[in-house]
Amino acid sequence: MADQRCRLPGWRDRVMTAEQAAELIQDGMTVGMSGFTRAGEAKAVPVALARRAAENPFSITLMTGASLGNDLDKLLTEANVLARRMPFQVDTTLRRAINDGRVMFIDQHLSETVELLRNQQLGKIDVAVVEACAITESGGIVPTTSVGNSASYAILAEKVIVELNLAAPAGLEGLHDIYIPQMRPNRQPIPVVAPDSRIGTPYIPIDPAKIAAIVVTEGKDSPSTVLPPDAETQLIADHLIAFFEGEIAAGRLTPSLLPLQAGIGTMANAVMSGLKDGPFENLSMYSEVLQDSTFDLLDSGKLNFASGSSMTLSPQRAEQVLGNLDVYRDRLMLRPQELSNHPGIVRRLGVIAINTALEADIYGNVNSTHVCGTRMMNGIGGSGDFARNSQLSIFVTKSVAKSGDVSSFVPFVSHIDHTEHDVDILVSEHGLADLRGLAPRERARVIIDRCADPLYKEALNAYFEEACQRGGHTPHCLEKALSWHQSLETRGTMRAMAAPLIEGGNVA
Amino acid sequence: MADQRCRLPGWRDRVMTAEQAAELIQDGMTVGMSGFTRAGEAKAVPVALARRAAENPFSITLMTGASLGNDLDKLLTEANVLARRMPFQVDTTLRRAINDGRVMFIDQHLSETVELLRNQQLGKIDVAVVEACAITESGGIVPTTSVGNSASYAILAEKVIVELNLAAPAGLEGLHDIYIPQMRPNRQPIPVVAPDSRIGTPYIPIDPAKIAAIVVTEGKDSPSTVLPPDAETQLIADHLIAFFEGEIAAGRLTPSLLPLQAGIGTMANAVMSGLKDGPFENLSMYSEVLQDSTFDLLDSGKLNFASGSSMTLSPQRAEQVLGNLDVYRDRLMLRPQELSNHPGIVRRLGVIAINTALEADIYGNVNSTHVCGTRMMNGIGGSGDFARNSQLSIFVTKSVAKSGDVSSFVPFVSHIDHTEHDVDILVSEHGLADLRGLAPRERARVIIDRCADPLYKEALNAYFEEACQRGGHTPHCLEKALSWHQSLETRGTMRAMAAPLIEGGNVA
Repeated sequence: MADQRCRLPGWRDRVMTAEQAAELIQDGMTVGMSGFTRAGEAKAVPVALARRAAENPFSITLMTGASLGNDLDKLLTEANVLARRMPFQVDTTLRRAINDGRVMFIDQHLSETVELLRNQQLGKIDVAVVEACAITESGGIVPTTSVGNSASYAILAEKVIVELNLAAPAGLEGLHDIYIPQMRPNRQPIPVVAPDSRIGTPYIPIDPAKIAAIVVTEGKDSPSTVLPPDAETQLIADHLIAFFEGEIAAGRLTPSLLPLQAGIGTMANAVMSGLKDGPFENLSMYSEVLQDSTFDLLDSGKLNFASGSSMTLSPQRAEQVLGNLDVYRDRLMLRPQELSNHPGIVRRLGVIAINTALEADIYGNVNSTHVCGTRMMNGIGGSGDFARNSQLSIFVTKSVAKSGDVSSFVPFVSHIDHTEHDVDILVSEHGLADLRGLAPRERARVIIDRCADPLYKEALNAYFEEACQRGGHTPHCLEKALSWHQSLETRGTMRAMAAPLIEGGNVA
Repeated sequence: MADQRCRLPGWRDRVMTAEQAAELIQDGMTVGMSGFTRAGEAKAVPVALARRAAENPFSITLMTGASLGNDLDKLLTEANVLARRMPFQVDTTLRRAINDGRVMFIDQHLSETVELLRNQQLGKIDVAVVEACAITESGGIVPTTSVGNSASYAILAEKVIVELNLAAPAGLEGLHDIYIPQMRPNRQPIPVVAPDSRIGTPYIPIDPAKIAAIVVTEGKDSPSTVLPPDAETQLIADHLIAFFEGEIAAGRLTPSLLPLQAGIGTMANAVMSGLKDGPFENLSMYSEVLQDSTFDLLDSGKLNFASGSSMTLSPQRAEQVLGNLDVYRDRLMLRPQELSNHPGIVRRLGVIAINTALEADIYGNVNSTHVCGTRMMNGIGGSGDFARNSQLSIFVTKSVAKSGDVSSFVPFVSHIDHTEHDVDILVSEHGLADLRGLAPRERARVIIDRCADPLYKEALNAYFEEACQRGGHTPHCLEKALSWHQSLETRGTMRAMAAPLIEGGNVA
């Protein structure tokens, strides 16, 4: 079997154990690894690194596509291997280390990491570690369930370690489209003109002499942690579907909508699944992660084609999809995240972007990352790549969190990832705020009316009215702007904010 | 003379006075006018509108390229003509009306306005009013000193009023390159691959039947308000030039740098002028506004080509340039702002973007627009189009304003236009902070050390240290985060903030 997967002549001379391969990685190095939304990460070498560091401490800068599965970020954090980490993560242990200031985390727009590397703005990659389902005759690396940044990492690295994963289906070969933009300022247009544009090679083309080690593995991706829709999530999906129907009726969209992007997570997944029950047809996706909902839509016949950078599936879906890749082969493509999230392509295609907000303020600024303005959750990921450049930028969130102690709609967000310029539509279970063409004072009314929870509506209106008395294009009461978050930090709830605001504060 | 300028057969039948043409604009209409950075605006019809409204009140939605000259926004505001205004302005009177909530101002990324119109997300344009230096045989409109959004406004409007400005040099014809991106999702790549790529027509192609009025004028653009560099501005330019020299030495840039963009204003103008004394050659610009510095650089032989959407010049420079267009003809191009600021093109060319910050926080988030988080200055303009997509995003600001009462570097910006992800370099007269590849805690140290004024350095460090004790990826003390702005609002100065912070606050 391994010889069918690895067609590079003489490849067995480079086979070694994960421990041996890990020796190529030394203290202070910068390492680029495969892995995007817990799909297709190198699985053996990171474990070997963590084991070695437990005995013989060292640390590295680790770059990936996005999040890793199989608790790798946890293991590496616990072994103190991570000095610096970019551009995204979702691990509880690593998150704690980041928030304690023990790991320097550089939170990046996912399309930008390799552009910065290529311009020498992030130093150089010493070693790339890339999971593959095959190696071609010429040494081309065929990724597995994600492309992420693997292609540029392998191309830019001095040495490449390939983890040849025999448990990944051979049928993954052919799904990938690897294209590397030319150096600037002499770059030609990237020729993607539709989600199904094939513009590159089905493998990562590198000088085979750089393949310093081949580690044969049989690991599996971690399954998706997406939950089925609950009542609120279903309402959010319903509001959005009604909105799309309205846009079609108004002639602004057709039943094919526009190429769809949906962020990772339960809410975006539910919204996408909901599309299969609406009056839509010939849909397409130009997204970063393809979740269960993508395959629900493909199975329903509503979705013609899905382009992404990874597949992150539930155990059942993973088994069904990976065991039947021929069913989906002509309707799927996995691209480098630089391409899946490329601002120019997102703008060109007019993507409809659906992402999840942690909180939004009454003017429509969105916080996707920082709890109470300080503690990193995961990272901005691709949300900025899509929200800024999409034809329609939609953010979804439940109106409250923690049984109502936290309002997702606040006077002033404690951190901004997406400014009001980049937020067209906000949706909660209560309704949908269409903010297109509105000035800030108009946005506030619509957001409070449509999206905020009744528990907090009066307090938000009171804040807004007091702020308007003081004036400004974007009225605020500075001394109260962050008081909701202060209350949450000190009292564990925002509930207390409603009453004093309604009774009237110190109007300047 | 007029017949040489207007070559459309039978054009004289459509000539009318500004007052007559203004009658085409009625209460409640949406009007798109030419004008970008006070260059090339329609000059007569707006005045006629203001006069009529003084007697017979009505209001409209006014869209332009960017700011208007000749006090037109003032006149229109005073006559209460403006119900809604987008996407940019710089007028004191209009600013007051916006901040009082009397004019609904929609502050937009300058590349996006016509994209939104084309997608029917901003309603329809009833009337376009476009200044021209000529009308071609086929009815093509040749703009004057700016293109702005004129092309799409004219193409999308039901009726077009052309102000044929005989005072604008005939030699402007040929400088423009008008290209309209195709409808999405079937858009082909926009073929600009270099600042001098000519991809369109030298005129705005419209159905001549839509030209409902031709008003002959002889007005002049308002001159630039840019000031000569002062000591601090010169230091900022010096720091930036030293940085570019370092980048060349490190092999990350060549002496040609990359296509340059510079925001409007004294500081960016000074930085650009400074380039003529450095070791640079074969420079190019891919910018939105071409100021005096562009022509200084062209004259010095350092700059090969400049692409923009407008020319905004001092009286002397305007006379020299407009009287000698042949000298510059092959080295200049004016494009629609959708093209000059296009995210995909800015990314493709790897532009170096130099924009002015109102304030920045210790983590590198930038406020370009809102004084104390509430009062609009001008608008985000093109800064977001460039900062997000550039190869190097640079923001410049003096470290203090109002004789030291205001620190431009604060714990927490009161409004965010550009998130830390989009800010690579910050420069003040004290120094340059290179933030590339740094995590927030590292950014804070560099920004405080390099850019903050000594007067505020200790207080910023005290805030940061207290915040770090509380933890978080982006540490903050929420109850103090906006205290610097509160102090400015209530006491007129931030000076008072230093002492209490140093004495140690209530560490949680």
